[in-house]
Amino acid sequence: MGIPSTQRAAVKVGEGDSAKVEVKSIEVPQPAPDQILVKINYSGLCASDKSLLHDEWSFSGVSMQPQTHGVAGHEGAGVVVAVGSDVKDLWKEGDRAGIKWIASVCRKCEFCTNGVDECHCPKQINSGFSIAGTFQEYALTDARYATRLPDGVKDEEAGPIMCGGVTAYVACKRSAVKPGQWIVLPGAGGGLGHLAVQYAKAMGMRVIAVDGGDAKRDLCLKLGAEKFVDFTTVKDVQAEIMKITTYGAHGVVVTAASKAGYDTAPQLLRPGGTMVAVGLPKDSSVIAGAHPLLLCLKKLNVVGSVVGTLKDVEEALDFTARDLVHPILTRGNLEDINGFLDDLNAGKLAGRAVIKVAA
Amino acid sequence: MGIPSTQRAAVKVGEGDSAKVEVKSIEVPQPAPDQILVKINYSGLCASDKSLLHDEWSFSGVSMQPQTHGVAGHEGAGVVVAVGSDVKDLWKEGDRAGIKWIASVCRKCEFCTNGVDECHCPKQINSGFSIAGTFQEYALTDARYATRLPDGVKDEEAGPIMCGGVTAYVACKRSAVKPGQWIVLPGAGGGLGHLAVQYAKAMGMRVIAVDGGDAKRDLCLKLGAEKFVDFTTVKDVQAEIMKITTYGAHGVVVTAASKAGYDTAPQLLRPGGTMVAVGLPKDSSVIAGAHPLLLCLKKLNVVGSVVGTLKDVEEALDFTARDLVHPILTRGNLEDINGFLDDLNAGKLAGRAVIKVAA
Amino acid sequence: MGIPSTQRAAVKVGEGDSAKVEVKSIEVPQPAPDQILVKINYSGLCASDKSLLHDEWSFSGVSMQPQTHGVAGHEGAGVVVAVGSDVKDLWKEGDRAGIKWIASVCRKCEFCTNGVDECHCPKQINSGFSIAGTFQEYALTDARYATRLPDGVKDEEAGPIMCGGVTAYVACKRSAVKPGQWIVLPGAGGGLGHLAVQYAKAMGMRVIAVDGGDAKRDLCLKLGAEKFVDFTTVKDVQAEIMKITTYGAHGVVVTAASKAGYDTAPQLLRPGGTMVAVGLPKDSSVIAGAHPLLLCLKKLNVVGSVVGTLKDVEEALDFTARDLVHPILTRGNLEDINGFLDDLNAGKLAGRAVIKVAA
Amino acid sequence: MGIPSTQRAAVKVGEGDSAKVEVKSIEVPQPAPDQILVKINYSGLCASDKSLLHDEWSFSGVSMQPQTHGVAGHEGAGVVVAVGSDVKDLWKEGDRAGIKWIASVCRKCEFCTNGVDECHCPKQINSGFSIAGTFQEYALTDARYATRLPDGVKDEEAGPIMCGGVTAYVACKRSAVKPGQWIVLPGAGGGLGHLAVQYAKAMGMRVIAVDGGDAKRDLCLKLGAEKFVDFTTVKDVQAEIMKITTYGAHGVVVTAASKAGYDTAPQLLRPGGTMVAVGLPKDSSVIAGAHPLLLCLKKLNVVGSVVGTLKDVEEALDFTARDLVHPILTRGNLEDINGFLDDLNAGKLAGRAVIKVAA
Repeated sequence: MGIPSTQRAAVKVGEGDSAKVEVKSIEVPQPAPDQILVKINYSGLCASDKSLLHDEWSFSGVSMQPQTHGVAGHEGAGVVVAVGSDVKDLWKEGDRAGIKWIASVCRKCEFCTNGVDECHCPKQINSGFSIAGTFQEYALTDARYATRLPDGVKDEEAGPIMCGGVTAYVACKRSAVKPGQWIVLPGAGGGLGHLAVQYAKAMGMRVIAVDGGDAKRDLCLKLGAEKFVDFTTVKDVQAEIMKITTYGAHGVVVTAASKAGYDTAPQLLRPGGTMVAVGLPKDSSVIAGAHPLLLCLKKLNVVGSVVGTLKDVEEALDFTARDLVHPILTRGNLEDINGFLDDLNAGKLAGRAVIKVAA
Repeated sequence: MGIPSTQRAAVKVGEGDSAKVEVKSIEVPQPAPDQILVKINYSGLCASDKSLLHDEWSFSGVSMQPQTHGVAGHEGAGVVVAVGSDVKDLWKEGDRAGIKWIASVCRKCEFCTNGVDECHCPKQINSGFSIAGTFQEYALTDARYATRLPDGVKDEEAGPIMCGGVTAYVACKRSAVKPGQWIVLPGAGGGLGHLAVQYAKAMGMRVIAVDGGDAKRDLCLKLGAEKFVDFTTVKDVQAEIMKITTYGAHGVVVTAASKAGYDTAPQLLRPGGTMVAVGLPKDSSVIAGAHPLLLCLKKLNVVGSVVGTLKDVEEALDFTARDLVHPILTRGNLEDINGFLDDLNAGKLAGRAVIKVAA
Repeated sequence: MGIPSTQRAAVKVGEGDSAKVEVKSIEVPQPAPDQILVKINYSGLCASDKSLLHDEWSFSGVSMQPQTHGVAGHEGAGVVVAVGSDVKDLWKEGDRAGIKWIASVCRKCEFCTNGVDECHCPKQINSGFSIAGTFQEYALTDARYATRLPDGVKDEEAGPIMCGGVTAYVACKRSAVKPGQWIVLPGAGGGLGHLAVQYAKAMGMRVIAVDGGDAKRDLCLKLGAEKFVDFTTVKDVQAEIMKITTYGAHGVVVTAASKAGYDTAPQLLRPGGTMVAVGLPKDSSVIAGAHPLLLCLKKLNVVGSVVGTLKDVEEALDFTARDLVHPILTRGNLEDINGFLDDLNAGKLAGRAVIKVAA
Repeated sequence: MGIPSTQRAAVKVGEGDSAKVEVKSIEVPQPAPDQILVKINYSGLCASDKSLLHDEWSFSGVSMQPQTHGVAGHEGAGVVVAVGSDVKDLWKEGDRAGIKWIASVCRKCEFCTNGVDECHCPKQINSGFSIAGTFQEYALTDARYATRLPDGVKDEEAGPIMCGGVTAYVACKRSAVKPGQWIVLPGAGGGLGHLAVQYAKAMGMRVIAVDGGDAKRDLCLKLGAEKFVDFTTVKDVQAEIMKITTYGAHGVVVTAASKAGYDTAPQLLRPGGTMVAVGLPKDSSVIAGAHPLLLCLKKLNVVGSVVGTLKDVEEALDFTARDLVHPILTRGNLEDINGFLDDLNAGKLAGRAVIKVAA
C-alpha cells in the first residue's frame, strides 16, 4: 500500500486544564520488528484522554509521557498497512486491527504468565500515554497484542469498544452479579453507562439505571434497563433502590468520576454486595470504599476495574458481533476533538465520541 | 442441676468513654422454649465489648440495647444447665456449649436460606448487644444456633474463639490468599493479630507480621510468621514489604481500628490483591478503601469481614482441637474487666483477655 | 376451609415395569406441628416419578418407601388449607405453596448449616419417595421448607418448576458456562431440555440445541437456541459442534438417561469444559465420565446435579415471574397418569406433563 | 562453553511392551532462534515416559512422534549452554533452567491468551513426545517457556518437580479441598502420591494416605499424613474412610492408572466432593466417573488434571525452595533406565527415579 511519509494528527498544545489539541502534520512512524502499523479508520475518544491531556492525575504520578509526542487516543480501529520484520504470519497487510490502551505487555512477568491478568504487567506500554496513540492516521502497536476485529463489527463501533466497551464489560464481570440479580448503574445514560446497561442485560442481570431526565429514561429502558430511577425527581435514591430490591442491589458500578458517586454507591448494596470502581477522579481526596462498620457488618466488596485482557476485548467485541451491544456514537473529525473535550467536561456528550481519523 | 435464682454479673454503669462495669447480683433468666441456659465457665473479652460499653459506634446507629440490661460479652463457653421446652434432643443438660456474637437468626430470610451467609439475617439477635451477654454466670442463647464445643478444646480457649478466633479465621479466608502466597498482618502481635498469624500459617500462607518491639517479634515468629517487620525500627514499611514480596502482598488483614492502618494497607498490595477490613474504628471519618486510581489500576479488592457462620465457628474450633491455633490468654475475673478495658484502650493487652465467670 | 376426610389419589398398583397407578379414595392426612397441608391444584409429572413407580433404581438401593402408601409426585402447587400447631406466622390458610422433591431437611447437619447445600442433608424427607407425594388432593409438607409461590406464576407452571424447572436451572448454573459461551443441550426439545434452553438463554449463554426433527427445531429456535443440530440428519454431531464452536463447547448438560448420551457428551467439550449429569438411567452399567486420557489431557469437569436448594427454587420461579421461562405443558387429570408414563417410556411426551389434581 | 558435537542419549529400541532404551551417541542439536540449549544435569523418569516408550496410549491416538528420534524424558534440570539468536536478555549461558512436558506453546490461541490455561494450546510441543526429550546430555527447549530454577532447589530435585511435582501440586489444587478438610490419596507412598502428601499437607489439608505395608505407613506419616489406611490389612477401605470423615472425604486424587482405583474413588467422597483423575491407564475401557445416581445425588465432581502452567511449575518449585516438599529419589544413570521401567511396571519403584545425565 502506498504509505505517505507524513500524516495528520491531533497533537497536544498547552498545559493543564487549558490544554487543547491542534491538528498538525507529523511523520508517519515505521514499525519495529515486532510491531504493526495500523491505518486508523476510527478512534474513540475516552474520558481518560481528556484526563491525560489535562494532566488531571499528576497528583498520583500518572501523566502523559514525552514519547507520545502529544498524540493521545487508545480506541483505534483500522487496517494493517505494514508489518515488522518479525511479525511473519501473525498479521498481513489488509487485516483489520484494533489498538487498545494496553499496546504491549512483556509476556515474561508473573502477571503475563500467571494465567490471570496481563493488565498488571509492570512493563506494559500504553497507547496515548507512553507511546503515541490513535489520534493520528497511522499508529504503531505490538503485533502480538493487537486485536483482530471480527466480521460484523464496524470500525466505528470497534473503536469505542477497545476501551469503553471492554471497561463496561469487565466491570459487569467484576461485579459478580449473577443472572437474575440486581445491578445498579449510576450514570447509566452516559458514555460508559449506556454500554454497561447493554452488557449487564446481555449477561442476564436485572438493571436499575440511575440518571436524570426523560431522554435518559427512554434511552436506558430501550437499551434493556428494567427500572429507571430519575435522580432529578426521586428524592431518596437509596430508599428507591431498597424498595425495588428489598435488601439492596447485588452490585453497583461507579462509572462517574465524582466524590458523590463514590460516597453513595456502597449504601445501595445488600449484604455481600459488590461495588465496582471504574471512574477515575482528578480529586485526590476521593476514596472508593466505606466506613468499616458498613463494610464489615454488611461484608461488602469494593473492587477496582480497568479495561481488560486481550481475551476480554475479544469477548466484548463478540457481544457487538452478536448484535447485543452497540455504542451510541457522536461522530466527528480530528478537528472536533477540542469540542468533545469541552462536552466531556460539561457532562453533555451523548454516548461515546468517535473520530473519523484517516480518509 | 441446682440453678440459683440470682447470679453475679458485670453490669454497665456510666455512659460514653467513662462507662465501666460493676459486679452485681442479678436474676438468673429462664430459657424460652427454643433456648438453652448456659453456665458460663469462661468468657472472652472482645474489643467490641469495649466499643459497645463505651458507645463508640453510636454515630452509625450501633449501640448496646436496653434489653441487655448492661451485660456485655459474646465469647462464652460453658455447660448447658437447662433447656427450653422445644429443644428436645438437640441439647441436654451437661453438654458443653459456646455462645457467640450472633445468638440467633431467623432461618427464614434470604440470607438464612440462600446457602451463603446467615450472618446477614436482618432479624439476628446478638449477645451483649441486643440480649444480655456472657459477662454473667448464666446466659441464654438460641438452642439451634449455639455451638457444640469439641473435645480437645478447653473452655478458656473456646471462649475467645467464639468471636476473636472465628473473626481472624474468616478474615484469612476472605483474603483469598492461597497456600504459598503472602499475607501481611499489621498488629500481628495483638489480640486478633496473633490468632490470624496462626490461622494463616495453618492455611499454608506465608505470613509477614508487622508489629513493634522484640517481644512481638519473638511471639510472631514463634507462632509461625515467616517475616517480621518492626515498625519501630523499619523506616519504610511499604518498601520493606515490596522488598520481601517483589510486587506486594497478595493480602492484608487490617485488624487495627485506626485511620493509619486503613490508609496504609492498600499500598502494601500487589495488583489483584485483597485488603480485608476487620477493625471497627470509632472515628466516623475512616474509610476502608483507596483512591480509584490505585484501586482500579491495580484491580485491588477491599472487603469487609465480621465474625462468621455457625459452620465457620466449628471450623475455627477444629484448628484448635488439632493443636494448630491457640489464643494467648490474659486471665482475670469479672472484677478485672475494667482494668482490661483500660488496657485495650492503651493497646497494651497481651493476646486475648479471658474472664473466669462462674466458679 | 372445609377439608374433607377422604380424597382422590393416584396410588401405585403392581410392581416393576408393569406398575401403574389407580385413582382411589384415601384418607386426608393431618399436619404434624411443623407441617402444612396443601390442597394440590396442579402437580407436574417427572421422569423420576416413573422411575420410582417402576422401581428402576433398586440396583442402587433407591426405591419408593412404604410410607408413601404408593402416592408419588413431587411437583405440587396449590394453596395452604391447614397449618400445624407450631407453624404460627410462617404460613396461613390461603397462602399459595409449592411442594418439592425435598420436603424437609434437618437444619442441624453439616450440609444444612454449612452455607452450601441442604440438598445433601442425610435426614431429608422426599415427596413421593419417603412420604406421600403430590398425586393426591391434599398433601403434607414441612412448613419451613415449602416454597412460597410468587405472583405472576400460575399453579400449572409452578408445579413443573418445583423439580423440572429447578433441575434445568441448577444444571445450567453447575455448567459454569458464562454469558457469551457455548452450551450444548442434547434432547433440547424434551421435558427438561426445553426448560434448560430457556434458562441458559436467559443467563446469557449461547445455546446449541441437539434433537431430532423439524418440530423440535422450530421449538428450540423459538425458545432461544442459537443453533439447532438435528441428529436425524447431521451425520457427525461432534464434528458439527466443533465446527460451530472451534474448540468444542464450554458446557454440555446431559438430560437424557441413556448410555449413548453419557458416552458422547465429553467428546463435545473444549479443554476445561464441563459436562453436567442430570439424567438418571436404570441401566446400572452407565458411567458418567470419560477415559482419563480425555478427561486429564483436556482438564474436563464432570459434575452431577440434582434439583436445587430452597433458594434455587425461588430463583427458578423468578425467571418465570419475569416471563423468561415457561414450561410447555401437556395437561391431564389423575386418570391420565398411566398414559403419560407410557409416553415418557416411549420418549414421546411433549414438554412436561402436568396433572390437574384437586377440582 | 565447550559444546561437543556428539553426546550420549538413551534412545528407544524395539516396539510396544518390549521396547527398551539403548545408550547411543547422537548429534548435539543447535538452538533455533527462539530456543535455548540446556545441558541436562538430572532428568526425572516419569510413568508417562514408560507409557510413551511402550506405546500404551495408541488406542487414543497418543504416541511418541518420529521427531523425538526415540529420546524420551520431560523432567530435565541443568544449565543453559547456548541461546538462539532471538533469545537476547531472556536467558544467558550459565543460567539454571528446567525443561518440562510442555516445551512450547503458541502464545496466540485462545488458551494461551485467555488468562486461564496455556496447557491446552493445540499447537503445544511436548518434550519426549513431539521433540527429543531430556534423556540426552543436551536438550533444546523454547526460551520463553523454559523454567528458571530458584536458589535452594537442587537439580536432582528440580527435575522430578518439572512434571511429577507440578502434577501432584495441581491435582491438589484441582481437588478444591480447603485447609482443614480431608483429602484421600490412594497410592500415597508412590511416585506421585508421596509428593501429593507433602503438597496437600503444606496447603493445610488433612491427609488420609492409603497404601500397603508398614514401610509405606512410616513414610506417609513422616511426610505429613494424618491417617494411614493400610489396604493390605483394612478390610473395607471405604468404611474406614467414612469412619474417619463422617460423611466421606472432600477430595480424592487418583494417581494410580488402574480400573480399581477409578472405580473406588467416587465411593470415598462426601456430597459435593471432588475426585481428581491423574493416572493414565493403558486399558481403554477405564472410565473416570460414576453412575449418574451416585454422581447426581451426591453432586460429585470428577475432574481431570495434567501437569500445570508455567506459573504452576514456579509455585511447585517454591514449595521445595521453602523446604516443604522433597521428592524421594531413586538415583541412576542413563544405563539404569531400562531397569527403572521394569520397576515401574512392577509397581516397586520407590519415590521418583532420577537420572544423572551429563557428567
